[in-house]
Amino acid sequence: AMGGDSAPAVEVEGVSHALRELPPGFLVQLVGQPDAIERELDRHPEVDRGRLEIVEASEVIGMGEKPLAAVRRKRKSSLVVGLSLQSAGKSDAFISAGNTGAILAASTVVLGLHHGVERASVGAMLPTAFGPSLLLDAGANVDASARELACFARLGSVYMRDVMGVSAPKVGLLNVGEEDEKGGAVVREAHGLLRDQSGLEFVGNIEGRDILAGHPKAGHVDVAVCDGFVGNILLKFYESVGKLLQRLLANGDAGLLAHPDIRAAFRFLDYSQYGGAPLLGVRGISIICHGSSPANAIKHAIRVAVHSVEVQLDQHIKAEFERNGA
Amino acid sequence: AMGGDSAPAVEVEGVSHALRELPPGFLVQLVGQPDAIERELDRHPEVDRGRLEIVEASEVIGMGEKPLAAVRRKRKSSLVVGLSLQSAGKSDAFISAGNTGAILAASTVVLGLHHGVERASVGAMLPTAFGPSLLLDAGANVDASARELACFARLGSVYMRDVMGVSAPKVGLLNVGEEDEKGGAVVREAHGLLRDQSGLEFVGNIEGRDILAGHPKAGHVDVAVCDGFVGNILLKFYESVGKLLQRLLANGDAGLLAHPDIRAAFRFLDYSQYGGAPLLGVRGISIICHGSSPANAIKHAIRVAVHSVEVQLDQHIKAEFERNGA
Repeated sequence: AMGGDSAPAVEVEGVSHALRELPPGFLVQLVGQPDAIERELDRHPEVDRGRLEIVEASEVIGMGEKPLAAVRRKRKSSLVVGLSLQSAGKSDAFISAGNTGAILAASTVVLGLHHGVERASVGAMLPTAFGPSLLLDAGANVDASARELACFARLGSVYMRDVMGVSAPKVGLLNVGEEDEKGGAVVREAHGLLRDQSGLEFVGNIEGRDILAGHPKAGHVDVAVCDGFVGNILLKFYESVGKLLQRLLANGDAGLLAHPDIRAAFRFLDYSQYGGAPLLGVRGISIICHGSSPANAIKHAIRVAVHSVEVQLDQHIKAEFERNGA
Repeated sequence: AMGGDSAPAVEVEGVSHALRELPPGFLVQLVGQPDAIERELDRHPEVDRGRLEIVEASEVIGMGEKPLAAVRRKRKSSLVVGLSLQSAGKSDAFISAGNTGAILAASTVVLGLHHGVERASVGAMLPTAFGPSLLLDAGANVDASARELACFARLGSVYMRDVMGVSAPKVGLLNVGEEDEKGGAVVREAHGLLRDQSGLEFVGNIEGRDILAGHPKAGHVDVAVCDGFVGNILLKFYESVGKLLQRLLANGDAGLLAHPDIRAAFRFLDYSQYGGAPLLGVRGISIICHGSSPANAIKHAIRVAVHSVEVQLDQHIKAEFERNGA
């Protein structure tokens, strides 16, 4: 509950919204400083306290802190305490709007990685006109080896299949051209690994335009694989497109911004800021939200977490790496 | 004249448009297979043949060919012949819609690099609501050393200042976060080099959203520096945004796509496909167009080339690297 820029106010409000929508069996644990959380809960008398537990965590990891060092030092942070609940079997999923690097580090350390997974990866869902596309890694790792890229592809494929319900998710490797031999050594090697990987619908290299416009041959691509440097820059760029359009249209016809189709288009583009990004590859469920997430985004992230638990994402990822080897 | 997907038809049509707008002193050389060019010129009787010269080049480098090998083997290609005119002092600028890698290779080999320039870089102009932003490298090099990234920054800064008329262009280094220590080793080293570089308005790291939305502190960024892998993916992604919007709006109110403000917004976004991208760092002027450029884009590229010659871009780049060392 202490992660986001406006914690714990936004977290508590998001939980209040989520509890109204979630199936009755689900309970929420709010991890953090009890006084601060109680103060916010006082403003939400609608919350069914019988479905809520407050778990004390006295420390907070700030946005500016070095991830791994902070995780090691602050064992009583809401991040470490919250994840430890899961590793101890006392919770099924973890959600935070805190420092992304720290969530990655703590999730990897506390939950551990699935056997065969090289590195955990943040998957970001990009809305396209043909359906969502999962971009990963979206910022967990600033670089990635060929084996790690291949691992991201498999993690993303399982997520799109089992959580998003895409029957045979198409996976593309982001590159500067369609041809097999394009790109630097790492991407070329990853291409070879992916081509030889069984059980994966690998469509080959995709270009930057293919995410939104579809691949010329394969059509809509469900999973776009890249290292975290490219993914993070691309994701944030996408998030700013709505702002550009708003500015472009703001100087003209005043009624246009109020037009329902235009409003729908902006909502569509803003989608990228809502909801959590799954951290894939760790043993368990860990969902990362923007630090600036509004309550609605927290609610959506809780929904993603619940759905991931319901479909047993964790078991599917374990099975994928057992079946197809490391 | 033989580079683009519809060569030489589009090239000849673009030249016809350009000749109507260019100052009288400028002449155009069409380099390629004279028969094919003449056939197209027959369809454009409006062209003032006194301002046009056809230079024979019997070979053509295809889109699929390996750049450097093709340049070495096909000395009579329109690419090599056209660039050689410039190195021989018989022309001032070169424009092609051919194979980007081959244009880069041939320009580097035939024109040479300015003293102190590590590597040539393709600059792509991204329209933002606050003015254009030059993204470089936009695909010439799939990776880049820290020194090369610093070099791209200086090339971009000179271009924005002397060709685009921005008095003190702000330069940002694309990264996954604002903080100095973000990113991998190469980007961190480049950050240090840029910070210490005199005569450069370096605003530090910028994030993916800062290109379109402006940097939180520095505002609009004129030059965004990255390696060619990131730049190429980002540029192509940007080019597909218009398509996404078109699809989003196509299902709703039929009149909306015809609304003048919406049409203007689409024209604005489509801008990225028009006009040439300067190849910076070579001795001379070399402008790269999309293979799928329409005649209008060829015309715009000619205008960019003419303007680059008028402001003596080449001399300014030479001076920048002489003044501030390699």
